Amino acid sequence: MFPEPNSIKRITSIGAGPIGAGWAAHFLARGYNVTAYIHHESERKAFEAIVRTGWKSLTELGLNKGASLDRLTITNDLKLAVQNCDFIQESAPERLELKQNLYSKLGQLVPENVVIGSSTSGLTMSDIQQKCSTPERCVIGHPFNPPYLLPLVEIVGGKKTSPNALEWSGKFYEAAGKSPLIMKKEIPGFVATRLQEALWREALHMVANGEATPADIDNALMNGPAPRMAVQGQCMAFHVACGEGGMATNLDQFGPALKLPWTRLKAPELTKELRDRMVEGCNVIAGDQCFEDMAAKRDAKIVAVLRAIRETN
Amino acid sequence: MFPEPNSIKRITSIGAGPIGAGWAAHFLARGYNVTAYIHHESERKAFEAIVRTGWKSLTELGLNKGASLDRLTITNDLKLAVQNCDFIQESAPERLELKQNLYSKLGQLVPENVVIGSSTSGLTMSDIQQKCSTPERCVIGHPFNPPYLLPLVEIVGGKKTSPNALEWSGKFYEAAGKSPLIMKKEIPGFVATRLQEALWREALHMVANGEATPADIDNALMNGPAPRMAVQGQCMAFHVACGEGGMATNLDQFGPALKLPWTRLKAPELTKELRDRMVEGCNVIAGDQCFEDMAAKRDAKIVAVLRAIRETN
Repeated sequence: MFPEPNSIKRITSIGAGPIGAGWAAHFLARGYNVTAYIHHESERKAFEAIVRTGWKSLTELGLNKGASLDRLTITNDLKLAVQNCDFIQESAPERLELKQNLYSKLGQLVPENVVIGSSTSGLTMSDIQQKCSTPERCVIGHPFNPPYLLPLVEIVGGKKTSPNALEWSGKFYEAAGKSPLIMKKEIPGFVATRLQEALWREALHMVANGEATPADIDNALMNGPAPRMAVQGQCMAFHVACGEGGMATNLDQFGPALKLPWTRLKAPELTKELRDRMVEGCNVIAGDQCFEDMAAKRDAKIVAVLRAIRETN
Repeated sequence: MFPEPNSIKRITSIGAGPIGAGWAAHFLARGYNVTAYIHHESERKAFEAIVRTGWKSLTELGLNKGASLDRLTITNDLKLAVQNCDFIQESAPERLELKQNLYSKLGQLVPENVVIGSSTSGLTMSDIQQKCSTPERCVIGHPFNPPYLLPLVEIVGGKKTSPNALEWSGKFYEAAGKSPLIMKKEIPGFVATRLQEALWREALHMVANGEATPADIDNALMNGPAPRMAVQGQCMAFHVACGEGGMATNLDQFGPALKLPWTRLKAPELTKELRDRMVEGCNVIAGDQCFEDMAAKRDAKIVAVLRAIRETN
């Protein structure tokens, strides 16, 4: 039903804000033809400024063959904007009624084998797709800001989304140079924002209680866990830090620390099932890499990151 | 009372584990003479292996003039280990009684103008210093693993620690190439671990609820917020993302999102006092930088980080 993810050539990006313009810049850098829909002509200048800003970084990171800003068309005619497009990335304002009406129109205008990905961070696809006559091909494809730089795209469907559309989206975003994460359930905040939000609320608690200043928070993060988190997720960080015992040692030995007041967030109960899921999940990520290699790779990457930051200071 | 932080030449590192050995490697790379105390001769081989591993990364990052592994002495004689030292970094096992007895001995053996910094992550200095006859110079200097790579050192005293010792430690760790954070209060988990622990517990909740796998968690973090957190803390990330309105816009406009179930952690109430503290704190960090410059700097650094990671793959 859907076209080959690798055959996509023409993308429509809806929305003139930082997310819509950021997506347009990203897709242009990957060599696609991009038509940008902006709601009003007055938004053109700001839109173009964001694309130009993104383009500088994207050029540094390396453009795909044939990538060019000349492949960008901007219009405020929605019908024209979606004509002949192979994929739509929707980044309209975060108002449910507005999005529902938009998807109602798109449902009529766009052939049903064209997938529509929404950048929404606060709404669910089950809600957004309610007035759409062709909701099966509607998914959430949530980027992380700035979308022209950070690779993550969280993909999740609504109640009426077809599993095929989700699978297709994963393949498409990957072909488009992104790191897709197809979610297991429709939950508020998806995965990355939930992780960030827990950290952020703990930070607000500390500032509220006079335990730390914003400068302390940022210092602690940038000079502490963040450079490591950029090269190794928190699961693998604990897995590798525990040597050959890995995550099993982490949870069996330090499990009681989950009860300590090291954050205002209570940990879930460390059941055998949770423990095993964590251990097996880390073993899957590790594959056949040995502990020494993973530690050496972590160190080499942290060194590269620290040098990169130092050299751009 | 304390010597000039810049005049420190001889450091004793207590502890043969990854933290003690990691500290030894760090101080050696900065050109200090280091005496390492290991509890038992049988620990020597593992200790040396960690120092060698750290040395590779430290060499890549750049050694200070005169830095050499030849400046390392290893002994299991505590009295000998602390003789003539100018500073002690203590990374003994995390057992309160063991540390209390150790500080009781150190209190006798070491002149009171020598500061002792503890790497403890789970104990408080108020507890550790209880049997020490000279508790005023005892501080916590908590590193982040691996200590030879991550710059953060969280500094906090106990009830009997003198403010002078805290101030001195900040200057010393900075002179020793670290990024010190002098804490406002003695709280469990300090700042960085609290941020990381909130994120970690939210991750465990998601795995427990079948919302994400460990691979999803790590993917979300590494390809989402982490590369940005490595170059810009979360406070400045929100400040800069909101353009000229900065943190004020973030809190005034998106404050209600703090009530949304985007994590299991409840946010503190967004009082006017908290709002103002956040806004003023961000203005202090920003100084006279304009929004465009901060955004451009963020992008340039994220590009450098992403390239560095890609090139070490």
